[in-house]
Amino acid sequence: MSPNTLRAELRAILGENEIAADPTPYQTDQRRRYFSPDTVVALPASVAAVQALVRFCRERGITLTPQGGNTGLVGGSCADGGVILNLSRINRIRRIDLADNAVTVEAGCVLDTLRAAVRDAGRFFPLSLASGGSCQIGGNIACNAGGLNVLRYGTMRDLVLGLEVVLPDGSLVSQLAPLHKNTTGYDLKQLFIGSEGTLGVITAATLKLFALPQSDATAWVGTAGIGDAVRLLALVRDRFGERLSSFELVSRYALELSASFSSLKAPADADWHVLIELTDSLPQQDLGVLLAEVLLENGFDNAVLAQSEQERRELWTLRENISSAQRSLGASIKHDIALPIARVPEFADACGRELAERFAGIKIVLFGHLGDGSLHYNTFLPGHLDNSVYEAEAAINETVYRHVLALDGTIAAEHGIGSLKKHWLPQVRSAEEMALMRAIKQHLDPQNLFNPDKIFI
Amino acid sequence: MSPNTLRAELRAILGENEIAADPTPYQTDQRRRYFSPDTVVALPASVAAVQALVRFCRERGITLTPQGGNTGLVGGSCADGGVILNLSRINRIRRIDLADNAVTVEAGCVLDTLRAAVRDAGRFFPLSLASGGSCQIGGNIACNAGGLNVLRYGTMRDLVLGLEVVLPDGSLVSQLAPLHKNTTGYDLKQLFIGSEGTLGVITAATLKLFALPQSDATAWVGTAGIGDAVRLLALVRDRFGERLSSFELVSRYALELSASFSSLKAPADADWHVLIELTDSLPQQDLGVLLAEVLLENGFDNAVLAQSEQERRELWTLRENISSAQRSLGASIKHDIALPIARVPEFADACGRELAERFAGIKIVLFGHLGDGSLHYNTFLPGHLDNSVYEAEAAINETVYRHVLALDGTIAAEHGIGSLKKHWLPQVRSAEEMALMRAIKQHLDPQNLFNPDKIFI
Repeated sequence: MSPNTLRAELRAILGENEIAADPTPYQTDQRRRYFSPDTVVALPASVAAVQALVRFCRERGITLTPQGGNTGLVGGSCADGGVILNLSRINRIRRIDLADNAVTVEAGCVLDTLRAAVRDAGRFFPLSLASGGSCQIGGNIACNAGGLNVLRYGTMRDLVLGLEVVLPDGSLVSQLAPLHKNTTGYDLKQLFIGSEGTLGVITAATLKLFALPQSDATAWVGTAGIGDAVRLLALVRDRFGERLSSFELVSRYALELSASFSSLKAPADADWHVLIELTDSLPQQDLGVLLAEVLLENGFDNAVLAQSEQERRELWTLRENISSAQRSLGASIKHDIALPIARVPEFADACGRELAERFAGIKIVLFGHLGDGSLHYNTFLPGHLDNSVYEAEAAINETVYRHVLALDGTIAAEHGIGSLKKHWLPQVRSAEEMALMRAIKQHLDPQNLFNPDKIFI
Repeated sequence: MSPNTLRAELRAILGENEIAADPTPYQTDQRRRYFSPDTVVALPASVAAVQALVRFCRERGITLTPQGGNTGLVGGSCADGGVILNLSRINRIRRIDLADNAVTVEAGCVLDTLRAAVRDAGRFFPLSLASGGSCQIGGNIACNAGGLNVLRYGTMRDLVLGLEVVLPDGSLVSQLAPLHKNTTGYDLKQLFIGSEGTLGVITAATLKLFALPQSDATAWVGTAGIGDAVRLLALVRDRFGERLSSFELVSRYALELSASFSSLKAPADADWHVLIELTDSLPQQDLGVLLAEVLLENGFDNAVLAQSEQERRELWTLRENISSAQRSLGASIKHDIALPIARVPEFADACGRELAERFAGIKIVLFGHLGDGSLHYNTFLPGHLDNSVYEAEAAINETVYRHVLALDGTIAAEHGIGSLKKHWLPQVRSAEEMALMRAIKQHLDPQNLFNPDKIFI
C-alpha cells in the first residue's frame, strides 16, 4: 500500500491531527544513518486510538514501528515502510503515589519532564541520560535505558513496577498498581522491557521513586591508567557504599575534545580521568571532605573537588558534551559494551593495541560508566568524515567484539540491538535462547508486524 | 513406573549417594499440608548429573519437581509422583568478584551461608528471611523471595545479574558474568525468576552485593491505628531516604503471641506496632538520635529505641518469632498479599470487619512488611486446631482476595502460586497473560514434565 493510500485509509480511524502532516522529522535517526522511506507517521492521542490503529494494521498486514523521542543509536525506531507509531502525544503523568513512592506516567512523557514533575512533588526519579530533554519514558523502557546513575539505582528495568501494553492483537494488558511485590506467575512485563517495540506498544508505566538527594560531592580525578581508576572505584565504593551514584571514566582524548567543544579548561592533566559523584538524602556537610580524604590518603592527588554548584555543573558538562564534541571527527563506528569491571583495563589495552596496528591512524574515543563496567568505545578513521567510515565497520566490530566476548563482556550494554547489531545477536545468545525469543515473538506477533527486522535477522 | 523401579533405573545415571536412601524429609512441606507420595528423591552432586537426570526423565516421560530448602508455603516443591530433584548438594560459592560487587553461587547454597561468606569478604547480601538458615538460593530465585530488606534492596529479582539453568531438554543456558548492564534481546532470565520450577532447574546464579552496613538504629513504635503507621512510614522515608531498610507492621495480637512465645516483654502497649530499622554504610553515630527526633517531633512517643545490640536482637526476635508463635493456635489459612501502601488501612478495616461478621470467633494474625505494602494475613478458627480449618478456606479466601483485588492489591506477594493459589491465578491475570505464560511453558516443556500442576490449573 502506498503511503498516500495508507494515509487516506488511516483517516477513517484517526483524527486529522493524529497523522503527521510533515513526517520527515520522524523518518531518520539523529545520526542520519537510518531512514524510513515510504512510511506514514501516526501520532495517536489516546490509548484507544493506539488500539484502533493496531487492529487496523493487523487486519491489513501493515507493519508498525513504535517510536518515542527517536534518540536511539541502533536504528530501532526507523522502518522500511508501514506505520511509524510515535507516542509523543500520549504523555500525561497520570498520578504520583507519594505513600508508595511511585509515579504512573504515559509512554510519550519526556524523561526530563517526568524528573522535574516528581521533583516538584518532593521525589527523585533517577534515570539520567544525556538525551533526557527529548527521549521518552516508553522508549527508555523499550530499550532498558541505563545512563549516569545505574551504579546506585539500576537500569530502567529496575525502576519499573508495572506496565500498560497494547499487544499486537490490539488487546490491552495493564498492571499499573504501585505494588512493590507481586509474584503471580511469570513476570511478563520483563519481556516488554528491552524488547525494542517488537512485542507490542508500551503506553504507560508505573515507576519507582526515591528520596531527593539533599547533599552531594563531585570530584574530577586524573589517573595514570585505567587500572588506577578501577582501584579508585573499589576504594570509593568500600568507603561510601550506597552514596556513590556516578563513577564515570573519560580518556585523555575524549576530555580534550570535550574541553575544546565546551570552552572549558581540563580539570587535570592525565591519560585517564574519573568523574565521581556522591549523593545523600540527608544534609551531610562533610561529604566532600570525606571524599577528599579518601583521594589524598590513597595518592589520588591530581584531583579537583567542586566547590560550588557552578563548578559541579562544569565538571558534568565536560562529561556530557563528549558525545556532541566527537561529531567534529565525523561519522564514527560506535560500540556500546560492558565488561566485568576488573577486566576493563585488559580490554582497553589489548583492543586498542590491535586496532592501532590494523587501522592506521584510528582514533578511539573511550568514555562511559566505569562503575557499571559499561563503556562507549567509539572509533574514527582519518580521512573518513562521512558515512564511508562504515566500510570498515565489519572489520572493526569483529575486532572489538572478539575482545569483549573473550573477556566475558556484552556487545550491547544500554542501547539495545535494533538494526545495527541484529547480525551479532545469534553469536552472543545460544540456539536455545534464540529459539525461546522467537517463540515468544511468534506467539505475540504471528504476522511479524511489530518492528519487523529488528533484533532478529 | 513404581518408585522402586524408578530408583533402580536411576542407579544407571546417578551415584549411590545421589539418590536419597530415606526420602521422607523431602516428601512433605514444613506445614505438613502437602505430601509427595510415590516420589524418588534425587540429590545430584553436579550440574552434569542434573543434565543427565533431566534427559533420562525426558526420554521416559517422568515428571521432575525441583526442590531447594523445602521451606515454601504454597506446596511448590511437593509432587504427586516422579522425581524430586533436590539441589542441596550443588551448593558451592563459585567466586566472589569484589571489583564487580558480585557473587556467583550454586542453587543449593543455604541463604545464611551465602550471607556469612560474603560478609567475611567485606560485602553484604541483603536478602533476609526468617527461614534463612534452611532456604536455598535456587529456591529464593525460583520464588522471587522478598523478606525484611525489600524496601531498600528490592526482591530477589532485583538482586540477580545472571543465571545458569538446565532447560527441560537437558541443555544448559548460562549467563554468569558479573555484568550490571546487558541488553541483548529479551531478558530471558526474568522468566525463570519466579517460575517456581516449571520451566527448568536453576543451578547457579550471579548476584549483586552491597556495602556492609557500618551503623544502624532500631526502634519499636506503638501506634493507635494502621493509618498512623502509614503516616510514620512517609515521615521516616522522607527524612532518611535510602537508609530506611525495614519498616515492619505487627498487630497487638501478633505481638502478644510472639512475646509469650519468646518470653520477652512487649516493648509498647498499643493496638498496632512498627519495627523500624535504619542502616548506613558509613559509621553514623547519630542515626538513633535523629530517628528519636523524628518520632518525638511527630507525636510518636510510645516508642523504644534499641540501646545495644542485645536490645536490637530482642526487638527483631519479637518480629521474627510471630510465625512460630502462631502455631500454638493450630492450622491456619494464610494469605501472602500486597496492596498499595496507602490502601492498607482500608483493607485491614473492611476485610477484618467482614471476616468477624461471617466467621464467629475468627482470629487474625496480621503482620508484615508495611514498607513494601506486603502483609501476612493469617486466619484461625476457634475449635479447628487441625487441618479441618481448611474446610472454611474457600470462603475465607474469597473474602480476603475480594477485598485485596478491590483495592488494586495482589493475592501473591512473596510466596508464589504453587499448588495453593493456582485456581486463583486465572482470576488475577488476563486471558492474554495466561495464554502467553502457557505458550512459554509449552515451548520450553512441551511434555509438561517440570513441576506439573503448579501455577497452572
